[in-house]
Amino acid sequence: MIYCFSIVIGGGVPESERAKELSKQLGVDILPLQVIQGHTPFRELVKRYEDDLIVAVGKGAPGRVMTEYGFKNVLSIDDYASCFPNIDPLAQYKKWTKMQPTDREMALRTDPCSQRVQAVFIVSDPVDWSRDIQVLCDILRTGGLPGREIAHQPPLFFANDDIAYQALFPAERLGMGAFRIALESIFNRIHTNNMEYTSYGKPNPFVFKNAENVLLQVLQSAYNNIQSSGEMQPFKRLYMIGDNPSVDINGAKQAGHPWFSILTRTGVFKGIGNHADYPADLVVNSVEEAVDYILRKEHTS
Amino acid sequence: MIYCFSIVIGGGVPESERAKELSKQLGVDILPLQVIQGHTPFRELVKRYEDDLIVAVGKGAPGRVMTEYGFKNVLSIDDYASCFPNIDPLAQYKKWTKMQPTDREMALRTDPCSQRVQAVFIVSDPVDWSRDIQVLCDILRTGGLPGREIAHQPPLFFANDDIAYQALFPAERLGMGAFRIALESIFNRIHTNNMEYTSYGKPNPFVFKNAENVLLQVLQSAYNNIQSSGEMQPFKRLYMIGDNPSVDINGAKQAGHPWFSILTRTGVFKGIGNHADYPADLVVNSVEEAVDYILRKEHTS
Repeated sequence: MIYCFSIVIGGGVPESERAKELSKQLGVDILPLQVIQGHTPFRELVKRYEDDLIVAVGKGAPGRVMTEYGFKNVLSIDDYASCFPNIDPLAQYKKWTKMQPTDREMALRTDPCSQRVQAVFIVSDPVDWSRDIQVLCDILRTGGLPGREIAHQPPLFFANDDIAYQALFPAERLGMGAFRIALESIFNRIHTNNMEYTSYGKPNPFVFKNAENVLLQVLQSAYNNIQSSGEMQPFKRLYMIGDNPSVDINGAKQAGHPWFSILTRTGVFKGIGNHADYPADLVVNSVEEAVDYILRKEHTS
Repeated sequence: MIYCFSIVIGGGVPESERAKELSKQLGVDILPLQVIQGHTPFRELVKRYEDDLIVAVGKGAPGRVMTEYGFKNVLSIDDYASCFPNIDPLAQYKKWTKMQPTDREMALRTDPCSQRVQAVFIVSDPVDWSRDIQVLCDILRTGGLPGREIAHQPPLFFANDDIAYQALFPAERLGMGAFRIALESIFNRIHTNNMEYTSYGKPNPFVFKNAENVLLQVLQSAYNNIQSSGEMQPFKRLYMIGDNPSVDINGAKQAGHPWFSILTRTGVFKGIGNHADYPADLVVNSVEEAVDYILRKEHTS
């Protein structure tokens, strides 16, 4: 049997919503568990920050994503920034329409202006870089209390570190990794200690291990529905289909067995032959070709 | 006689408009020539780029500022970016109200999508950093044609390089210098050649020399109105009143005679005594105190 899973970098919406979208688009039932987004590993940090004031940054509904994971005291950076008058000196030049008006309605246990921010999560691509870099520098320099004295930096987590990705424009667009470089360069210039952070996401082999574990869980629950006894066999092979050599293929290579990497010429990589630095196990022109290959391979072996 | 001049960093509006505003606020007639903004020195580059396609970046009306200086083929980055579909992958998350709708109406001699951008001017603080950094990387990497092949970087000019300045928030806010650091760090990471640029503005002694020349021109024209003969004497003393030691005081020090520096405790500097690295000739608590000192000094000496 062949199972299909999606590791989506974009993110910014809860896995439950993304699963619904994908089910509709693909005409197949996709469970939330089958959707692994860049920010999915943040779930593992719930125990550590469950009741702490944390700030969630990025497009979409970063606050709702973190709340669904179980964090109880989350503010999106939109709402957090709105607690501090004049924190963004360029605000008068920005006429935003808030995309996530419901985020504000989340019950907050504490007044964020007097409580220290305990951790910052970059959930998806930040939209308003000038404000977000300013507010993050404020939080990080002061130990979580903008406008106050210098103090120890709270932990900072990024869902991924992709510098560029292929979107609709002919040339690659800047991603979360570029935002990290901008924030880090400015922070290190205005602060004595270098910025400390943790990046999740591909090519970190953790993501592939995590995906393998999730796959095993899904398979086990499906297996238990069919027959009540027996042990699951570990995977003979897992396919990574990706369009970004340094992220997708590099990550699958680092993860090693049972990962088999297939590079498509549909995104970042458009070259002839294989990629020089991160050669894939197979290079194809499209996702369809990749799927055809897998179907042939798995039905004949 | 004592003359009063304003060297304003903020900018983003033509000197003619700023002079009108200041005249109203101060109740004294201020000529456009008496207003020296961060971007005023861009005027000196008109001969070089008069008919070339150039892009103007920043809050306010950067296109109108450059058009008033005499550049004939200017586009604000708002209008430039709108010529390229999908150039900003985060655009769908941004609901801006355009602040300068008239910029778009400027007659353009050429189609910007097919014509190379010959130079980029950062006129005032950029507002939409994620888009501006993306579009500038596109322009700079491709020699002025976003989406095309890599080519020689067109010249890039910044009106100032202030990393931080004091605004209404209790802690300093990030300025144009911080934007430059963000752009440069990302550009140097995705491109083989390092970003080349020229920064005008304080503490560059050029700004002080330029101010001195302008003062002399204003004085000469006033003098000619009073009597038709006679040569102007060079200044015995010029006062720099500033709130930023590394920019205002450092710049006045570097410019040397006839500049006399007065540091106010109203902005970036709030310490007791003088600044350690850039000591001013005089430190006072307010601009009023500085003016009192100057009036006493000039009436008694």
